[in-house]
Amino acid sequence: MKKIGILTSGGDAPGMNAAIRAVVRSGISAGLEVFGVFDGYEGLVNDNIRKLSRGDVSDIIIQGGTILGSARLEDFKLLEVREKAVANLEKHGIEGLVVIGGDGSYRGAMALTEMGINCIGIPGTIDNDIASTDYTIGFDTALNTVILNVDKLRDTSSSHHRCSVVEVMGNRCGDLALYAGLTTGAEVIITKETGYDESEVLERLSRIEEVKKKRHAIVIISEKITDVELLAQKISRHTGFSGRSTVLGHIQRGGSPTARDRILATQFGDKAVRLLIAGDGGKCVSILNEEIVAIDIDEALKMPKKSSRALFELHDRLV
Amino acid sequence: MKKIGILTSGGDAPGMNAAIRAVVRSGISAGLEVFGVFDGYEGLVNDNIRKLSRGDVSDIIIQGGTILGSARLEDFKLLEVREKAVANLEKHGIEGLVVIGGDGSYRGAMALTEMGINCIGIPGTIDNDIASTDYTIGFDTALNTVILNVDKLRDTSSSHHRCSVVEVMGNRCGDLALYAGLTTGAEVIITKETGYDESEVLERLSRIEEVKKKRHAIVIISEKITDVELLAQKISRHTGFSGRSTVLGHIQRGGSPTARDRILATQFGDKAVRLLIAGDGGKCVSILNEEIVAIDIDEALKMPKKSSRALFELHDRLV
Amino acid sequence: MKKIGILTSGGDAPGMNAAIRAVVRSGISAGLEVFGVFDGYEGLVNDNIRKLSRGDVSDIIIQGGTILGSARLEDFKLLEVREKAVANLEKHGIEGLVVIGGDGSYRGAMALTEMGINCIGIPGTIDNDIASTDYTIGFDTALNTVILNVDKLRDTSSSHHRCSVVEVMGNRCGDLALYAGLTTGAEVIITKETGYDESEVLERLSRIEEVKKKRHAIVIISEKITDVELLAQKISRHTGFSGRSTVLGHIQRGGSPTARDRILATQFGDKAVRLLIAGDGGKCVSILNEEIVAIDIDEALKMPKKSSRALFELHDRLV
Amino acid sequence: MKKIGILTSGGDAPGMNAAIRAVVRSGISAGLEVFGVFDGYEGLVNDNIRKLSRGDVSDIIIQGGTILGSARLEDFKLLEVREKAVANLEKHGIEGLVVIGGDGSYRGAMALTEMGINCIGIPGTIDNDIASTDYTIGFDTALNTVILNVDKLRDTSSSHHRCSVVEVMGNRCGDLALYAGLTTGAEVIITKETGYDESEVLERLSRIEEVKKKRHAIVIISEKITDVELLAQKISRHTGFSGRSTVLGHIQRGGSPTARDRILATQFGDKAVRLLIAGDGGKCVSILNEEIVAIDIDEALKMPKKSSRALFELHDRLV
Repeated sequence: MKKIGILTSGGDAPGMNAAIRAVVRSGISAGLEVFGVFDGYEGLVNDNIRKLSRGDVSDIIIQGGTILGSARLEDFKLLEVREKAVANLEKHGIEGLVVIGGDGSYRGAMALTEMGINCIGIPGTIDNDIASTDYTIGFDTALNTVILNVDKLRDTSSSHHRCSVVEVMGNRCGDLALYAGLTTGAEVIITKETGYDESEVLERLSRIEEVKKKRHAIVIISEKITDVELLAQKISRHTGFSGRSTVLGHIQRGGSPTARDRILATQFGDKAVRLLIAGDGGKCVSILNEEIVAIDIDEALKMPKKSSRALFELHDRLV
Repeated sequence: MKKIGILTSGGDAPGMNAAIRAVVRSGISAGLEVFGVFDGYEGLVNDNIRKLSRGDVSDIIIQGGTILGSARLEDFKLLEVREKAVANLEKHGIEGLVVIGGDGSYRGAMALTEMGINCIGIPGTIDNDIASTDYTIGFDTALNTVILNVDKLRDTSSSHHRCSVVEVMGNRCGDLALYAGLTTGAEVIITKETGYDESEVLERLSRIEEVKKKRHAIVIISEKITDVELLAQKISRHTGFSGRSTVLGHIQRGGSPTARDRILATQFGDKAVRLLIAGDGGKCVSILNEEIVAIDIDEALKMPKKSSRALFELHDRLV
Repeated sequence: MKKIGILTSGGDAPGMNAAIRAVVRSGISAGLEVFGVFDGYEGLVNDNIRKLSRGDVSDIIIQGGTILGSARLEDFKLLEVREKAVANLEKHGIEGLVVIGGDGSYRGAMALTEMGINCIGIPGTIDNDIASTDYTIGFDTALNTVILNVDKLRDTSSSHHRCSVVEVMGNRCGDLALYAGLTTGAEVIITKETGYDESEVLERLSRIEEVKKKRHAIVIISEKITDVELLAQKISRHTGFSGRSTVLGHIQRGGSPTARDRILATQFGDKAVRLLIAGDGGKCVSILNEEIVAIDIDEALKMPKKSSRALFELHDRLV
Repeated sequence: MKKIGILTSGGDAPGMNAAIRAVVRSGISAGLEVFGVFDGYEGLVNDNIRKLSRGDVSDIIIQGGTILGSARLEDFKLLEVREKAVANLEKHGIEGLVVIGGDGSYRGAMALTEMGINCIGIPGTIDNDIASTDYTIGFDTALNTVILNVDKLRDTSSSHHRCSVVEVMGNRCGDLALYAGLTTGAEVIITKETGYDESEVLERLSRIEEVKKKRHAIVIISEKITDVELLAQKISRHTGFSGRSTVLGHIQRGGSPTARDRILATQFGDKAVRLLIAGDGGKCVSILNEEIVAIDIDEALKMPKKSSRALFELHDRLV
């Protein structure tokens, strides 16, 4: 193994650049040449590939987004498209590839590995929706972006006796809403895991307003569950609060990564390089119970997500 | 003049607390008693009034929102409602009142002055939509909140060749969009002042993408001009960018005030107290060409907004 | 068990308030009365104790510092002083106590337990210097404060071809320096664990400047190792960089806690209450390999700190 | 005039990049070629000069520091050194030069103008120590950095009954300390303008602690007035507070510029280009009473600094 590549795929996440930096520098330290593939799997197919030096990744550890660009490529499922990718990799002499992204990106990595290019997946998505790892790169940053903004809403909410309904990302996994709810002292958390019962939510808010005499309330809800503007209007009609909705949207993907995301990304990137050097492929790196481990992608894709029930119960006790 | 009151009215703005603190402390320093009126004009009518000490306003200079609460009260236009307010003020012996808010709040302050309670208005709104002052309390903080979030969108925008359409507050005055556009290097700014021509916007973005080869683009638009989600979809269809919309919403009202808003609020609050002591009423305080001045409210409400044409032209030269 | 108390001891740390909130609310949810003890063990001795309601801890989850105040009390080692504390607790009918602090605070908690008041310790210190837990409350926030400031130094460092020497807290444990060094891409990390060899540091910086052609360099060093201003001057004399020192100091203790510190504090607070309810005492709560556990304080104080060698080696590969 | 140059000189300040961007883009919009001079006047002498395109300044509006680098060059006072600079400029055909920096940089600009190269100065320094302008580029950002950090100290100060002594930059001009003191609610402000009487400071703090019963106190002091660590120790000995010192240092120079600094820098950069096009030289741009104006450098260097007495008096009323 003398040459390896690195690409970022799917939605971008803060910390991807820290992982790229770790792959490049750990690779070079071990005597490898490292190539950047631009715009995800598309760059593999279009041969948008360029050798990276230590200096190319200087200072990127603090930057959000991904310097390599990212894209989704449906066609990568097609054998002939992947063959083109393999041909390009072989042309450059690249024998191993690190792929940063989500479950979909892992599937592409598995398929390439089966075609002879050892691939290692790194979990990078702000949604924390990859079952095989406790945390994904970008989750901690997105979570801190959410709570910073909810803290801002709290100021204005309190001034106007309002209930703020805040929609956050995470339609496949409610962790962002759950953790944000716990850490902002939200009165109500609604996710895929909790289900959604509108009349119960309205009733709970009424009770909070009348009985607990709170000056404001916060509802955190995952995207794609209900129309938050309509929910806010119903809160205005059916409770003592004036309801207002906020959709945080893409700002959750941005920003300089937190310490935790930088370090996790750095550990993941380094581990991926060492796996490639050891001749491994078709694996992804994960953090499980504070340990950086490698898991077969086949197995990883079948793992169930850790239950978050204990945290929901904790929230119920404290609200 | 031995007793004065202070209330916040209309939408809250970061820095209102700094103004409250200045009114309380400047008043006490001058030997006055200062009363807080809660929930805007409503608190006047409902006699929700309480004496404030120096300690009551300790540490609030750093807090967003308003500790006095704020509300809109349509009925304050009615004479019998205002008579109730005056009766309550007289009961407490309050002879002067500071009102922090927008144009609507100024009208109430004028009406009260005519009924014998000297009132001084302080401009507090994040929209900078008060013509009689160069800057309102809250504008600088809201603007910095906007640019911080647009900077975050830039990371993720660049990673995906996107055009971010960002809706900001300010439907009566486009300053927030204009200043945010200038300071984030936005490609397109759309406000009440510019008018809106959809096909021209799409064409300009196409040109930027094709000719200038930009990796991403930003459109800043004031609220209530068009549906930003539909605009984003059209950008995806008609230009090389993938369009995404973000509505910043109420987070623009929150957050700890910036240095500039804290100092402006402090100067305004102090000036208002000195005007009341001097026996003035029916005036508002303003900053005009870096000077803190007092203007008759009647006159203030008739002043035209300073033209922002030079800044729009500056933007055109630099984009 | 009907009444419990809560105090914060030693240096304050962001997230202590989140833990206080969790103890109060989890206690009340379980039918207990919860009492706040002010200014650490001193408040126990002086009977500075007051019952807390749910509302008393509203909105404090976002605040740095500790609403209960904190202090160090050397005299708590003396039996007669502790007897006074126990008498005060008994007067209020308080049967269990949660103590948030460091190793020293744990010793006091152990001593009180032996005198009949069940105590549970919660690790709260920004230094992460408690061996029995992977993370302490406040460490993540302090770390993020450090990297935010080092990121600021990077701007100005690059503009002037400088080497910034940054002193961070943590004289008993170098985690803050180590993690900050890893996450800011620092060229050199100096802690209690690495030891300090001045000439080696100067030589390494010279090499970086001459061979790697870096525009700036960052040295992160734990407090109480050397005089950083002198080190900066030597860097100016002996390397191509212009050296500048910065002592981050007490700003590392402040600020709104990060998501991670809020959630950890919440879990710790809740766990401590449940231990007291179960009749436990003389224990501390910890997070070990992502699990919230209870450990006998006696045992906890003897545990060795987890080795950080792997992270230092990781840094060496990437620098 | 077909070609102009731009350089940054002296200490860097956030917003310098925004000014560089404005000069480059405004120049190109007007049909000019714009050249970047690297490392201040040194780059002129060493011919470290490179043509800049629109794309070269993309996205730099959000970056602290200066992409051109900065340096001090004592020797620029010497005629033979300046002659070398002029020769290099003539070699490239550069007829006009924009110089961003402080008073010292203005002198160099004046000298070059007298040798036939029209120069325009732009005030860029975080200290606001240029008498000819109400505000310099970088002051607003530095001020917000200071207050953010003092707000952090407040958390921990309150928890321990402390008095924080915070040293900020600005030895020739106390604006940073004065504005920071006003906006953080500091109890004591010490600058070049106030003078320093140690026993008076200690007495005032004692009174605040005993009479006003404050939980914490903040002292803001300009650099180079006294040893702040010694002052903190004296506060511990002579007042009821525990004193702690913090030297903010170079972090005040860093960080992404605030909205205000970005817009001021943009206006200054554009104005400088238009002056060069109009054939002007030996002038500097300023903001005076909200207007962007040009002033002869000779005259600017003789202007007295606007008095800040009103703000000191305002502080006294509110403390």
